[in-house]
Parts: sequence; C-alpha cells; structure tokens
Amino acid sequence: MNLSDSINSVSSINSIDLNTVGREMYKLISELYPICRSITGDGLRETLRHIQTYIPLSIHEIPTGTEVFDWTVPKEWNIRDAYIKNSKGEKIVDYKKSNLHLVNYSIPFHQKVSLNELKEHLFSLPEHPDWIPYRTSYYRENWGFCLTHHQWLELKDEEYEVCIDSSLEKGHLSYGEYYHQGRGLDEVLISSHACHPSLCNDNLSGVALTTFLAKHLTPLSLRYSYRFLFIPGTIGSIAWLCLNESKVPRIKHGLVVACVGDPSRLTYKRSRRGDAEIDKAVTHVLKHSDQDCEIMDFAPYGYDERQFCSPAFNLPVGSLTRTPHGRFPQYHTSADNLDLVHPEYLADSFATYLSVLDVLENNRKYLNQNPKCEPQLGKRGLYRAVGGSADDGTDELAMLWVLNLSDGKHTLLDISERSGLPFDLIRDGAKALFEHKLLKEC
Amino acid sequence: MNLSDSINSVSSINSIDLNTVGREMYKLISELYPICRSITGDGLRETLRHIQTYIPLSIHEIPTGTEVFDWTVPKEWNIRDAYIKNSKGEKIVDYKKSNLHLVNYSIPFHQKVSLNELKEHLFSLPEHPDWIPYRTSYYRENWGFCLTHHQWLELKDEEYEVCIDSSLEKGHLSYGEYYHQGRGLDEVLISSHACHPSLCNDNLSGVALTTFLAKHLTPLSLRYSYRFLFIPGTIGSIAWLCLNESKVPRIKHGLVVACVGDPSRLTYKRSRRGDAEIDKAVTHVLKHSDQDCEIMDFAPYGYDERQFCSPAFNLPVGSLTRTPHGRFPQYHTSADNLDLVHPEYLADSFATYLSVLDVLENNRKYLNQNPKCEPQLGKRGLYRAVGGSADDGTDELAMLWVLNLSDGKHTLLDISERSGLPFDLIRDGAKALFEHKLLKEC
Amino acid sequence: MNLSDSINSVSSINSIDLNTVGREMYKLISELYPICRSITGDGLRETLRHIQTYIPLSIHEIPTGTEVFDWTVPKEWNIRDAYIKNSKGEKIVDYKKSNLHLVNYSIPFHQKVSLNELKEHLFSLPEHPDWIPYRTSYYRENWGFCLTHHQWLELKDEEYEVCIDSSLEKGHLSYGEYYHQGRGLDEVLISSHACHPSLCNDNLSGVALTTFLAKHLTPLSLRYSYRFLFIPGTIGSIAWLCLNESKVPRIKHGLVVACVGDPSRLTYKRSRRGDAEIDKAVTHVLKHSDQDCEIMDFAPYGYDERQFCSPAFNLPVGSLTRTPHGRFPQYHTSADNLDLVHPEYLADSFATYLSVLDVLENNRKYLNQNPKCEPQLGKRGLYRAVGGSADDGTDELAMLWVLNLSDGKHTLLDISERSGLPFDLIRDGAKALFEHKLLKEC
Repeated sequence: MNLSDSINSVSSINSIDLNTVGREMYKLISELYPICRSITGDGLRETLRHIQTYIPLSIHEIPTGTEVFDWTVPKEWNIRDAYIKNSKGEKIVDYKKSNLHLVNYSIPFHQKVSLNELKEHLFSLPEHPDWIPYRTSYYRENWGFCLTHHQWLELKDEEYEVCIDSSLEKGHLSYGEYYHQGRGLDEVLISSHACHPSLCNDNLSGVALTTFLAKHLTPLSLRYSYRFLFIPGTIGSIAWLCLNESKVPRIKHGLVVACVGDPSRLTYKRSRRGDAEIDKAVTHVLKHSDQDCEIMDFAPYGYDERQFCSPAFNLPVGSLTRTPHGRFPQYHTSADNLDLVHPEYLADSFATYLSVLDVLENNRKYLNQNPKCEPQLGKRGLYRAVGGSADDGTDELAMLWVLNLSDGKHTLLDISERSGLPFDLIRDGAKALFEHKLLKEC
Repeated sequence: MNLSDSINSVSSINSIDLNTVGREMYKLISELYPICRSITGDGLRETLRHIQTYIPLSIHEIPTGTEVFDWTVPKEWNIRDAYIKNSKGEKIVDYKKSNLHLVNYSIPFHQKVSLNELKEHLFSLPEHPDWIPYRTSYYRENWGFCLTHHQWLELKDEEYEVCIDSSLEKGHLSYGEYYHQGRGLDEVLISSHACHPSLCNDNLSGVALTTFLAKHLTPLSLRYSYRFLFIPGTIGSIAWLCLNESKVPRIKHGLVVACVGDPSRLTYKRSRRGDAEIDKAVTHVLKHSDQDCEIMDFAPYGYDERQFCSPAFNLPVGSLTRTPHGRFPQYHTSADNLDLVHPEYLADSFATYLSVLDVLENNRKYLNQNPKCEPQLGKRGLYRAVGGSADDGTDELAMLWVLNLSDGKHTLLDISERSGLPFDLIRDGAKALFEHKLLKEC
Repeated sequence: MNLSDSINSVSSINSIDLNTVGREMYKLISELYPICRSITGDGLRETLRHIQTYIPLSIHEIPTGTEVFDWTVPKEWNIRDAYIKNSKGEKIVDYKKSNLHLVNYSIPFHQKVSLNELKEHLFSLPEHPDWIPYRTSYYRENWGFCLTHHQWLELKDEEYEVCIDSSLEKGHLSYGEYYHQGRGLDEVLISSHACHPSLCNDNLSGVALTTFLAKHLTPLSLRYSYRFLFIPGTIGSIAWLCLNESKVPRIKHGLVVACVGDPSRLTYKRSRRGDAEIDKAVTHVLKHSDQDCEIMDFAPYGYDERQFCSPAFNLPVGSLTRTPHGRFPQYHTSADNLDLVHPEYLADSFATYLSVLDVLENNRKYLNQNPKCEPQLGKRGLYRAVGGSADDGTDELAMLWVLNLSDGKHTLLDISERSGLPFDLIRDGAKALFEHKLLKEC
C-alpha cells in the first residue's frame, strides 16, 4: 500500500466544482419532491429507483410480518387519492394539491361525517396558519387530514364527505443500499431516511447528499469500505440492523445525514460514545472551518442514530446536519419546501462531509524512526537554511509536531488537536516525513 | 422485593404538609433553646431526653477517662450559676440572663480579682457591641466570661467578685442514637452536633431537622437502614467511631446536619471523596431545585465531617447546610437566636433532605431487556399514537434515556445527569419500563 | 536523614539579598556581552572559561565529525574580522562595531561584488530600521551580513568589497557542565544555551541565572543532585543526550533557562508530559506569587526542551522564562542589549527558580500516624486553647489538611493544590506534625 495514494485520495475530491454539485443535488431534490413517500409503498420504491439513475443502488424488499427485534414489518401502504368534500360537493381539502394533506398511513375510508366527528381527525397549526402540518399514524390504524389553519377556521357546521382511496395490505418494506468496496473490510456507514413525502430539508436534502457522496467516492480506491443506506426512519434502521447483524461489527464510523440544505450553521450531534473517532473528526473539521457551528451531545431522540446507538450496538455513529431535528419552524410542515433548501448550503454540507471522510481516510498512527532528539530536517531540505528569525513556518511546525508525537500513541488527528493545527497541514507534514523515511506506519 | 414500593416510599413523604413540619421544628428549637448544653453534662442529657418525646432515641453514656483513638473522654462539666459583681455588689454579668456569658467548661472559681486580672478572662466583640460571643475551653482548664462590648466598655478600675458555681468531675459523655432498620444492612448516617448552648441555627436547627427526618422515616419500609446521631461535636463523633468501629463499613452515605434554619441559600460541602454517590445525589437535587445554591469542596474544617472523613475512614459523608460554618455574622454569638431561624427555611431544608434520600433510595442500575434497537413503546401504550410533531414529550424522552443507558454501567442518577432531566422523571420512566418488563434490576 | 534539614535547605536561600544577586547577574551579563559566541569556536570557549571564575565548571570538547544521533558535530567556526567597504574604501558595515553584522557561521570570503549580488546576502528589518537582525547559517555553507534598514537604504549601485576573515575547519564543539552531588542520585537538570553572540535576554540572562543558581546551591546538602549545562542550542543538547545517554534516566525534573531578564511577566512552558511534577511545581509557585504569569502548553519549538522532550526521552523538562522565545520585538536583534535586561527582573526570576527548587526538594509523601479521626493537636500545643471563634488559623488549617490527605497517595504539593494553601505553609505544617511524630515519611 502506498501512503501518498491514501493520503491524497479523498482530499483530491476537493478539487471538484462545488457549485455544480450543489446545483445537481438541488435538481435531484426537485425531481423527488412531488412523490408521496412513506415507510413502505410505491412512493418509497419510486424514489429508490430514481436514485438508481445516479448510483448503482440495490433495492431490498422485506415482507410484511417479518419480525425485526421487538418490531414487526408493517403492512404496505399505498395511496391513490384522498379528499374532503363539503355539502356542496366542493373539494375543500385535496391530497392531489399536497400529499401532506393526508395523515400518512391513513386507512381506507369513505364516509359522510359531521363536523364534530371530522374535527377529531384534523390537524392544523394555529401559530402558522398558512402551513400544512405533516402527521403520521404508522402503527395505529387510523385516518386523518392535515390542513392550514385558515382552512380549518372556514369549516362550517355541515356534513362532509371523507374519501381516502388507500390500501394497507400485506406487501413489503423497501430500502436502498449501496456498498463501495475499499481496500479493507472496515466500514463507514452513511445513512439517510427516505420515508418523508414532500419535505425538502427533512430529508430529501439528506437523500441527495448521500447520493452524491456515493457518486463521488465510487471512482476512488479508499482505505475504508463505504455503506450507503436509504431507509425508512426507525423501522428501516431496525430492520437493517436485525437482518445484517453479522455485518455490524465492521462499522467503524458512521454518520446519519439529515437536514443538510437550510441556511443555518452546521450542527454535529455526537455518537452515544461521545469520544469516538468520528466525533473527534467532525468536531475537528467544524472547529477549523471559518464558520460558526454547534456540537451537541448525544440524546436518544432524533433520527436513526437512536437505533445505531442503542446500547447493544453502541455504534460510533453521529449525525451531521445543519439545523437539527425539530429545531426549525418549518420542520414537518409544508414550508419545508424547495425554498428552504439552497444549492450553496447543500454544497457546503457536501464539502464538510468530504473533509470529514478525508480525516477518517488519513487518520493513522506513525512511528518516528528517529525518536531520540529531532532528526536533522535541514539536510533533507525540509527546514529553512537561514536561522534566527522569530517566525516559525507552520509547515516546519507541523513536521515537528508529527515527529514529537509519533510515538505509537497518537493518531494524526490527535496531533492536530494537541498542536491546534488543521488536519490538512499535519497530514501533509506526515506525508513529507514519510517520503523521507522519517516515519513508519504503526 | 417490589420495585414500585421502593420507588415510592420516600417520595410519598413529599405529600406531607411542609408548613406544619416547619412549625413543629421551630417549636422543638424553642423548647431546647434555654438549656445550657456542653459536650458533657446535664444540659446535653436533658436535650436528648426531650428528643425522646419525638423519637425513640437511645441515650448512651461513656465514662470519663475512656480512651477514644488519640483522645480521652473528658471530665463531666455541670454548671449551676455564674456571675461577676462590681464593688457595689451589683451583678454586672449574669449567667442566668444568658448561658453564653460563661465560657463553656469554665472551672469552679470564686474570688475577688482586679480589673486587669479580670480582663484576661473576658471576651467581647467590638465589631458587634450588642452581641455576646460564645467561647469554650474544653481541653484546657480555665475560666472566663463573655459579654457585650458595651458591657466591657463600662468596666471601671475596681475590684470584682467572680463566682462560677460549676463542677468538673468524673462522670460521662452522653450522646443519642436512633437506628431505623431498613430492608438491608447498608446504612445512611445522619449526624448532628447537640453540644451548643443557646444557639439556634448552630445547631438546634440541625437537631430539629434530624429529629423530624427520623420521625418521618420511621413508619416507612426503606432500602437502607438509617442511623441518626445526636452527639457533642468532635469528641462525640470520635467516640462514636471508636466504639462502633465494626459498624463503620456499613455506612454507604452520610450527611452532617447543621445550620439549616437561616434564610440563605442551601450549601453543600462535598465529602472528602468528592464524587461519592451522596455528593452526586445532593448536587443533582440542588441543581434541579429552582433556587440558588452553592457546592463547596471538602475541607478538613467545619463539623463532624472532619472525623467521618479522616483518612482511615474516608466515609462518603458530606454536609448540607444553609449558610455554612463560620460564614454568617451571628455565628457563635447571642444573635444566633430564635429570630435567625424560620419555619419556612427549616421546612425547605427538610424537603431538600427528603429529596436527597429519595434519590439514594431509588438510585439503582437496570438492564434494558431489549438492548438491540429501541423496543416498540407504542404497542405498549407508552408512546404517542400520532407521529410527526416537533415536540418530544419529556416522559417519552425519559424512557428513551433510561433504555439507552441501562446497560449495567449507569445508575438512574447517572442517567439523570447525562440527560439533564430531573431524577423524578427518570425514576418514573424506569418504573413504567420496569412494569412493562423492559427493564430488570441489575 | 533529618527531615527538617531537608525542609529548610533550599528555602534558607530565601534569606539571601536578592538585590545583590540581581546586580551580580547583570554584571556577569555585561562581562560576557561583547564576546562573539557561536555553536562552536573560541567565543563560546571564552564564555565558558569566564563562568569558571564563578563556579567550578568542566569544559568538554567534542571533535568535529562526531556522529550524535541523526546529526554530525560541525566544523569549528572562528571569526577575526568582517566588513563591507564601498567603492571609496569606506567600511559601511563593520563586524567590529557589532558582531551581529555578520551572519553567524559565514564562510571565509574576500571578493568584490556588485550591489545586486551583495543584496542576496543581506538581511535587514524594515519594521525596525535602527536594529540589526541576528541571523545564522550553521548547516549550510554560506555568507551574509545583517545591517540596519537605514544602512540598507543608503546602499548605492556600486561595487563593494566584502571581507570575511573567518575559518571553518576541523575542531571541536565546546560545552560546560557542572554537577552538584546531592544526597541521592536523582537529578534536576538546569540547562541554558550559551551560543548567541551579543544578545542579552536571549540568552546571557539564562547563562547568568544558571551560573548563580549553581553558585548558591553549591554549599548546600540537597535531596537531589543538580546538573547545570551551558550548551550551544540544538546541537549541544543533542550531543549531550547522545554522549550521556546512560545518565538520562536519572533526570527526574528539569528546566531550560532562557530570557529571564526582561520586564515582562514570567511564563512557564510545560514539559511534553504536561503533568509532570516540575509542571505542577512551577505552576504552583507562579499561581501563588502575587504577580501575573502565563502557563503555556508544550510545543516542539523553542529552545532545547525540543530535544529533552523528544519522544524517546520525553523528559520532564519545562522552560521557565519571562517573555518566551520569539515573542518580544527585540528578539534576535541588536535591541536585545544591556538595556533590555534589568537586575530586578533577573533577581525576580532567580527567586522564582529557587522557590521551584524548594518545592522539588521538599515535596514528599507522608503517612498520618493517627489516621482514624484527627489527633488531638491541642494537647501537643498545636491548636488554640479557646474554642468558638469563626476564624480558622491558616497554620492549623494547613496541619489539618496535611493530616487529612497524608494517606500515602498525596504529596505535599498535591495537598497544597487541593487545599489552595501555598506550599510553604503546607511544608511548615508537615514539619511541625513530623516533629510531633504525627507523620512518617512514606
């Protein structure tokens, strides 16, 4: 294995045109936006097939009734149409205008109901009267509609015709998986939930970023193998973990990708372990960016890190988002639309993910081959010829740090952290020293 | 053993009427206030007998001369009267007006003395000219009087008659002990010094709180056994530790109770260990109260924690006070009287002690019985039926935290601390999960 | 061995007259200032011989060509004269006016050169146009001159005569070493670089302080042996470590002495270990001085701590300076002259070094011989006779802390740190307890 190959492989991606990638991700989001996804059904399947036009994704189907740990794969849900008509026969709420209007997983229903009965099945947001909320009822058979609060206020005391042309029957739960083989079997897991209907930041942005990460890593020879999952939230990760339990120990690092297109600062939620290498890598990259960022502790709430970090797995999986789960006002409403996400923020998130992967790919331990005193860098052309000036070149300083701490106990990331120097500089210093045989890999 | 019994037992006390308890504690203080206590003698004995009217206290008597580690139980001191008369025969300092006027443990003395000689035996507080200081001379035979600085300034150059009608003879050192047997032999030690004469906050407040804690725990079946000590300061704890050394290893947690009636914020002084369970429990309770509080590190100065935390014992004993030892201006003066302590602050201190005991009683480790991914709480009625809203119920969150961290390494208190949720909520979450067989005790 | 001897030995130095020592150090600096030192040669040799008039220094000579780890001892450099003459034959740059004018280690050279050619060999400081920079070319054969920027600006386009009457030939590298035998073989290393020409703070100040430390410790019987090194920077410490490798394990603590005469606050740069006893000792002394100070983490840049802290040695060697390496504007310029250093700051640095050595000499572990409860200090005359006042004497408190923490796990310095009390007080408390047989050495 050639160190410099390894050192360059991911960071070479940084030469890609981020503006273009940002626009391509936005385009993919736009293509997927109209589809009504759920945790099962044809909308999810159609989404995965569309992703196959970008990357060679495998689509897996798990039959209804399959027991996965404490859970059971539910019946498959499909929806054709749904509406509420008033007494004049006018459609006052229409699924065809927005798939958020229907409570996701609503059972088939066609009946006349009074206003009072109807209201028990309606959801609106008085604090945002123009927005339609997004609600689900996956595990309890029920039906309901979501509407703007303006619509809700206009409801009169009359009889309504409720029609939900859905099916809830034995079928399958679908998910997509793409595995990129690296030089070793140790894996990096990149997971995004793909079960939300017309909602952009949560989580078509995550789906798009995962797709483009996979696309860009595909041509590269990498240290790690990469596993990309496009799964329905909760039940998808539970099913994957249950059916792939033997592969779980290979996962050495992981990130749950969600909400990566909005204009806010980047936020990293640590893994349950809190000090895993992925935690240190993301923290390092964020702190050395010139942007504001937030680092949060793990909590057993949010996205699929809940399952990856359950106590028996306790995987080193964190979540790198922009505004996190539940913290933006448009979250789980019709306002999480194509206006909320922007190519430039998608591109910034993408670049940050790449920087993190670059750290993981290059974060090794080396052994200083001249550990007694400094080696004479000058005779190797690695040190300034004229001495005496007060300024220390950061390149020289990076090499001195690498030499000083390459005692078999410190990774390059540890050295970056202790020195306060960015990983790139430490990595390049290590590369120069390695090429002069002053370092050996540990 | 039934978990829910255990979980409810102490917290059920929280339904008691704190106002009433505050008034009852204040009444006990008022009853004990006039008595002239010391580290031995009838005043201490009378105090312990009075406490027996509240709880079934055992009174122990240790003979003078008993060697207790490096110390010897001193002669017993009793006092009948003491005064200073001027040349006209007027009593200008009179023990009967305040027992603080006499230096505690003054030897018998009756003699005429000049002003100069007298002044060598007088103590006053120029900075608080209306207050009488409290001084002692337990271990060096001496005599003296304490007076207000106004009194001191009025002394004329004449001859004075000094009379101290005390006795210092072979006798006993008395202390009170009450042991409440729990379900196990592990003990919680609650200790208060009962040797101060007419001083309210230091420490009739501690005596009263200890008495009422004992009274309220008595009817309960508890996890721990509870040992309540009413002892003379320093020599009392040394004697108890020496004569009960075989019981010491049973003490798993302890608190020294003092200065719990003044209006200031609560202060906790950590045990010598600094991170014992009692330290974590008190800190948690104080931080989750909505009041200001102070957490101090251990120092080998203060009350009987000095002895309990001596290096060979190093017991997990902290001290929970309001204003601590020596830090209020009225400390060890006649101004530490019935005006300094208040029923409402006594009650607040009492409630805080109960909350701490509730943590100790319920702080166990559990094992998640479904450690691979989350169990499906919804099918057990423990999770909301409609999904999608941004808010997470704190009850659900508490259960998710308990499940996530119940891996055999975290107590419920650890889980409270990591989650930032109050112990009550975590305890109740654990109870619900336990009842659904999702947890087992570790 | 007698504890009180040990406890007093270094601190007794504090009775010396610091003003006098400050003036004596300044005088030594003045004597050494005119000499043109380098990493080899007669200037360095003359400097070491002059130090021999103060302390019985051994001068060691290592032949050119000796291999020391990755380095080779260079040829010996000597300089007689150097100048630049303009076309009128006027000396416009003259080594005899300041030895900084010549780039240190310039090869012999005598030739006429054009302005353009000359400029490639000139160094000036546009931001400080009156100052001459200090530059070196030890390991690459070259020549050059340093001049003020005013001089540089006046250069005309004419032909110049450059004359460097130097020699660069087989010879020796010289260094000075003084070993003061203590009661044990464990060593404290005090090292200063002595290779700079006419520069005062960096590092004649360090040379002077090292000399006077050695002089003052010489009459004392000490716990540790002390090794004082006066070495050329980098190559000197590398050579010493290589040729004395068997002695290296004896070094238990060390300090690199540099820049100790300027008016700024004291700065301590930690050893690579970061938490070595020397790090704790210096930090304690600085924090308990009433002066501002700075504590910096280790970095593999600066002075000879780079070599002492290389990974295979990883010695507990820090560096105690005033303004550190490279951080004062006069650093490595002609402005680092006799005006920059002051007797009073030299004396303050000297006193701080002594306080640090006092901590090292007296920092032991003791065992409380009465670990169950407090011993009765009063009966030994170590505790106040009258009880009750709020104030605790700090002497009593120091003894209580020593008793409480002398459990075989805490040194006196640990006890100082945990108690917040200055080391002196803790040391004196330990001494009193030891004399009363309440402590034994561990």
